[in-house]
Amino acid sequence: MTTSTTTDVSTIREIVEDWAKAVRARDYDGILARHTPDIVMFDVPPPLQALGIDAYRRTWDVFFAWSDDPVVFDITQMEVTAGHDVAFVSALMRCSGTEKSGDRVELAFRLTMGLRKTNGHWAIVHEHHSVPAS
Amino acid sequence: MTTSTTTDVSTIREIVEDWAKAVRARDYDGILARHTPDIVMFDVPPPLQALGIDAYRRTWDVFFAWSDDPVVFDITQMEVTAGHDVAFVSALMRCSGTEKSGDRVELAFRLTMGLRKTNGHWAIVHEHHSVPAS
Repeated sequence: MTTSTTTDVSTIREIVEDWAKAVRARDYDGILARHTPDIVMFDVPPPLQALGIDAYRRTWDVFFAWSDDPVVFDITQMEVTAGHDVAFVSALMRCSGTEKSGDRVELAFRLTMGLRKTNGHWAIVHEHHSVPAS
Repeated sequence: MTTSTTTDVSTIREIVEDWAKAVRARDYDGILARHTPDIVMFDVPPPLQALGIDAYRRTWDVFFAWSDDPVVFDITQMEVTAGHDVAFVSALMRCSGTEKSGDRVELAFRLTMGLRKTNGHWAIVHEHHSVPAS
């Protein structure tokens, strides 16, 4: 692994940690800060996919309507694979909220992110969040 | 996009298409042909993650026990983002099988793959399969 890649791994870990912190603060600008306009989002609830930054932003309305306050959105495991210009992240995470039934649930979920480096800056172009099917 | 990256995109599309074809043929050697020993798999059914090639192989036992015969495992949309040494794929897919209840279902699901190029060869190091939570 080159020094350049080690730096990229640190940078990307920081981007993901800052993003999760922004989610915990319900800070939309912070959440969207490192995403491209054409982000492809596969979220925990339907629909099958959300295309583009406006649709991505609306997935957070759904999350915050469900989420506990204060928001739980914690990274419990993270693996970063970074190349010179493309990278991906796989992580295990934890959140908690209240179902329509009124039941409060804690969810362990999986996150995969795809990133691209343009003009020296890493940006998130794909996210995939899910729970195992019951 | 450089010519090298265009070639990489074609190579990776072919790897994913060959993998899906091997799934349709219930051909384990073909399914596992391009995976690294330390593959991290987030599958549709539990568990939360399957670590390593042996656990990855066992996820296919679960799939084939559920799947229709002939196997349905079709790529309906695929986006490849390839750099010099790291790449990821996001795709929409379709499969069909029989639930424990006896109900036959068709599933539209999401796939994200992470790949790494070593000694000139692309290999799959991460897969994330999911359906939206109901």
